[in-house]
Amino acid sequence: MHRTHTCGELNIADTGKTVTLAGWVQRSRDLGGMTFIDLRDRYGLTQLAFNMETNAALCLEARKLGREFVIKVTGKVAERSSKNLKMPTGEIEIVVDKIEVLNAAITPPFTIEDNTDGGDELRMKYRYLDLRRSAVRKNLELRHRMAIETRNYLDLQGFLEVETPVLIKSTPEGARDFVVPSRMNQGEFYALPQSPQTFKQILMVGGFDKYYQIVKCFRDEDLRADRQPEFTQIDCEMSFVEQEDILNTFEGLVKNLFKKVKGVDIVSLPRMTYADAMKYYGNDKPDTRFEMKFVELTELVKGKSFKIFDDAETVVGICAKGCAEYTRKQLDELTEFVKRPQLGAGGLIYLRYNADGTLKSSVDKFYNEEELKKWADAFNAQPGDLILVLGGANSKTRKALSELRLEMGSRLGFRNKDVFSPLWVVDFPLLEWNEETNRWHAMHHPFTSPKPEDISLLNFDPGKIRANAYDMVINGVEVGGGSIRIHNKDLQAKMFEVLGFTKEDAQYQFGFLMNAFEFGAPPHGGIAFGFDRLCSLFGGSDSIRDFIAFPKNNSGRDMMIDSPSTINPEQLKELGIQLEARVKND
Amino acid sequence: MHRTHTCGELNIADTGKTVTLAGWVQRSRDLGGMTFIDLRDRYGLTQLAFNMETNAALCLEARKLGREFVIKVTGKVAERSSKNLKMPTGEIEIVVDKIEVLNAAITPPFTIEDNTDGGDELRMKYRYLDLRRSAVRKNLELRHRMAIETRNYLDLQGFLEVETPVLIKSTPEGARDFVVPSRMNQGEFYALPQSPQTFKQILMVGGFDKYYQIVKCFRDEDLRADRQPEFTQIDCEMSFVEQEDILNTFEGLVKNLFKKVKGVDIVSLPRMTYADAMKYYGNDKPDTRFEMKFVELTELVKGKSFKIFDDAETVVGICAKGCAEYTRKQLDELTEFVKRPQLGAGGLIYLRYNADGTLKSSVDKFYNEEELKKWADAFNAQPGDLILVLGGANSKTRKALSELRLEMGSRLGFRNKDVFSPLWVVDFPLLEWNEETNRWHAMHHPFTSPKPEDISLLNFDPGKIRANAYDMVINGVEVGGGSIRIHNKDLQAKMFEVLGFTKEDAQYQFGFLMNAFEFGAPPHGGIAFGFDRLCSLFGGSDSIRDFIAFPKNNSGRDMMIDSPSTINPEQLKELGIQLEARVKND
Repeated sequence: MHRTHTCGELNIADTGKTVTLAGWVQRSRDLGGMTFIDLRDRYGLTQLAFNMETNAALCLEARKLGREFVIKVTGKVAERSSKNLKMPTGEIEIVVDKIEVLNAAITPPFTIEDNTDGGDELRMKYRYLDLRRSAVRKNLELRHRMAIETRNYLDLQGFLEVETPVLIKSTPEGARDFVVPSRMNQGEFYALPQSPQTFKQILMVGGFDKYYQIVKCFRDEDLRADRQPEFTQIDCEMSFVEQEDILNTFEGLVKNLFKKVKGVDIVSLPRMTYADAMKYYGNDKPDTRFEMKFVELTELVKGKSFKIFDDAETVVGICAKGCAEYTRKQLDELTEFVKRPQLGAGGLIYLRYNADGTLKSSVDKFYNEEELKKWADAFNAQPGDLILVLGGANSKTRKALSELRLEMGSRLGFRNKDVFSPLWVVDFPLLEWNEETNRWHAMHHPFTSPKPEDISLLNFDPGKIRANAYDMVINGVEVGGGSIRIHNKDLQAKMFEVLGFTKEDAQYQFGFLMNAFEFGAPPHGGIAFGFDRLCSLFGGSDSIRDFIAFPKNNSGRDMMIDSPSTINPEQLKELGIQLEARVKND
Repeated sequence: MHRTHTCGELNIADTGKTVTLAGWVQRSRDLGGMTFIDLRDRYGLTQLAFNMETNAALCLEARKLGREFVIKVTGKVAERSSKNLKMPTGEIEIVVDKIEVLNAAITPPFTIEDNTDGGDELRMKYRYLDLRRSAVRKNLELRHRMAIETRNYLDLQGFLEVETPVLIKSTPEGARDFVVPSRMNQGEFYALPQSPQTFKQILMVGGFDKYYQIVKCFRDEDLRADRQPEFTQIDCEMSFVEQEDILNTFEGLVKNLFKKVKGVDIVSLPRMTYADAMKYYGNDKPDTRFEMKFVELTELVKGKSFKIFDDAETVVGICAKGCAEYTRKQLDELTEFVKRPQLGAGGLIYLRYNADGTLKSSVDKFYNEEELKKWADAFNAQPGDLILVLGGANSKTRKALSELRLEMGSRLGFRNKDVFSPLWVVDFPLLEWNEETNRWHAMHHPFTSPKPEDISLLNFDPGKIRANAYDMVINGVEVGGGSIRIHNKDLQAKMFEVLGFTKEDAQYQFGFLMNAFEFGAPPHGGIAFGFDRLCSLFGGSDSIRDFIAFPKNNSGRDMMIDSPSTINPEQLKELGIQLEARVKND
């Protein structure tokens, strides 16, 4: 071992001990007669002291050490004259009497500090340097802790961790698969799993009763900032359960994680129907750290010659407590916000409920004070409040108002990253109509079961069917979702039919699962949590990349190893594939 | 929840309780007035009782339930009249008053029993039924336990679990990579990792200090019974360590696993040099559950006109204690054993040290009793022992004798699967000469460091260099291996040169690692354990397939989902690849 202690553990009680430390030179300071070096490792920083008077040769040697040199030093722990009580080792320093350079370092392209001067590109390319920054390391330490606590909780609950295969079969349903050409079976391909969905159901058919896995999944999608081609799920499945059993079990998991990892007690974990989430928040992943619920005004505002509202399918608003004094400029900003192309609202109507009890709106021309008072009453508004109203086509208007609500939440400081408000959203629709493909798509996936009382709608009003499906939402982020599955072959076949599969396609892709159902499948259901997302939420960040050791960029490239890359012609030949001839300037 | 209890937990103390159980019909027996059903779930079996006299309708209903039907029953726990004390629930039965069929089952193609009548192919195709067999489930439960204990041990030792990417870069060195065509970067490919080797070294450069991961790895090799295209490793790396530190840390892991999972105390975990392993066992993974070490006779036997020995590069033997009375037939079997084409020995020489002190050999023509006594003394043989000797080319002869030693060990019952004899084999050669490619290959991998005292041999006698490399061997199986790595850019570049890389190739494939070494890489080293193999060893099986939930067959096919499979032409087009035109009848 190149050390007797780490750089994070020595303190005043160790004074007088001879120790050996190893680590990186974080910074050094020459104060004429003395040189100080901060030595860094994963565990902390320790100050090394060199004295020009007592050991000039060594001190000169120390002055030659550059940033990020890897060194090993031996010396005596001594009490510091000027203590730094902010760091655990801040009361001591090492009076060094021997230095060994284990490895020199050229100057890093950016500073290894919490606030680095390195841009994203540079930090990705030199990820090994970025990983030395304590901010990045702490994120990955958090991830480690989350994984350990998740496994220990699920183990205690009797879940078995079972590894499902990575080389599976391509199924064109859903997102694009990554595929892997087979050398031994030329012309054929494996696919990388988008989730272990069918395998975990097979494990239930196989009597495993409770399964989990923290598992890599893959989607060949065009990437956004918060998407990665490979991502990690906490994947779980249980047998002989109903929806309520799953909600209770995984409420336990999430509460346990908050308690163990963040020291936060989650007192209540409410359930909200999808219908209510859409009604009150215009969103199936409501941020419930604050209220500011939607209030419908559609009936109240019609017939007063205000054409926009008269023509509107929906008129709906929110009440921002205490914002009556918003300036013209602030209101203009909000108007611009909702008029952005992504939201596309025509405009924003406001109503100030002034502190003196008077009402002032942007539509005073059409509505008198008495009428406006009715609006205010609909919101239970108080003097000092500001009411913001949108009107238009239902779904678009609700979406825009949902964004406006979040914006107001941010402006009012309601979206504190240290406050956590988890909830279950339940009773999702089973199907949604897709205008592009002109057919029904599964809202969750094709294995989700309809609520028994709604099954009869399958043949004549599929859009009305509610599913035994649920999402866990925290602070407006969907961190997990699942469902009670279909476990009956005929119902599964019917689902595929509704989703537009031919019998042959359904059999080719999912025949093994439907066949399995014939041999005694238990009722079962499960859930998957987006582990990267969950970690970033716990870490108070919006970016999952900060919580992945080696993320890819938006083109799916690993900048550090420079991948993907070309492979040699023999490899292609062995696999029986050719690159498509491409016009060079296409 | 479709049950109040599992099928494994009720006992005499529960008598009188009303309970609901759910599970599979294991078997049913009609005894005229009574019908008994064994209900099975992951946790055990519970007997259900139906009485024709008291509830004929229900009893008739029960008689209609076929094997593997999934049912839910409610009834009262009652003491059995004829108890089965071999099973935990054997003192009670459930007097059922309600049955609900949750799912019917068609007749399974093989019996769901420990000794099933299903062949390998059938069991793979219907893996969901195979998984219901308690033998298979216990293997996977063992695997789960091994993973949990591994993680908890390493967590306590301060290791951080870090996920490394699955979509990486192809490196033609070593076994074949599986590759993944990139849609976003057409003409380029990702590769699936054969191990996270370079990433874990990068983590050390990044200051992570102690890393581990239980991780899927991939090799596109022609498969043998004990190889799978995807397999799992316990992968670890540490910084600022020397070989001894790694050996001690992972000795601790293995001892802890034996203690926690098997209840076995591993008292000593010896170290043996590669040179000694080859000298005494003819094998770098010796089975040390028994002695029977090799003894060199080369000098002793020459010059007595026995041409085979006179011409032999090596004459070497083993002494089988107490086997002097082996029959002619037994000796013939052993001779046939070593003459098999895989071993290719010309023949087998034996020497019986009879109980009466006389010596009788198959080469009495050439050696007198006095000479044979010298052989016996070389082995420290006692009256009653049998000496078996082979002669020929060194490496081939040692290999054959090694196999013969194992065969004798098996015949003498020394290879008990419940006895565990782990050891470290250390000081492996750094390089081995490959006749086919006519160049040096890395014995471990190109990142392994030479012993500092041997580095000077690099330029003139590379074959003599010993590496800081070590394997853990248990019962003749290599379960893990690792090394202290090179952490210096120049030495790494030199290694690539010795291995026949051009500068450009080395830079293209491993430039990121060598560059990383320039920014302050700490001394580091690590190990990887074959997790599938380790589990099978703990489970007392030779086949890793029994410890993988969804293994592939020898053609790399998943028989259950029927993969790999063709993908549709649009998928190929999006990826910019074409299948090579193949002559149909090739």
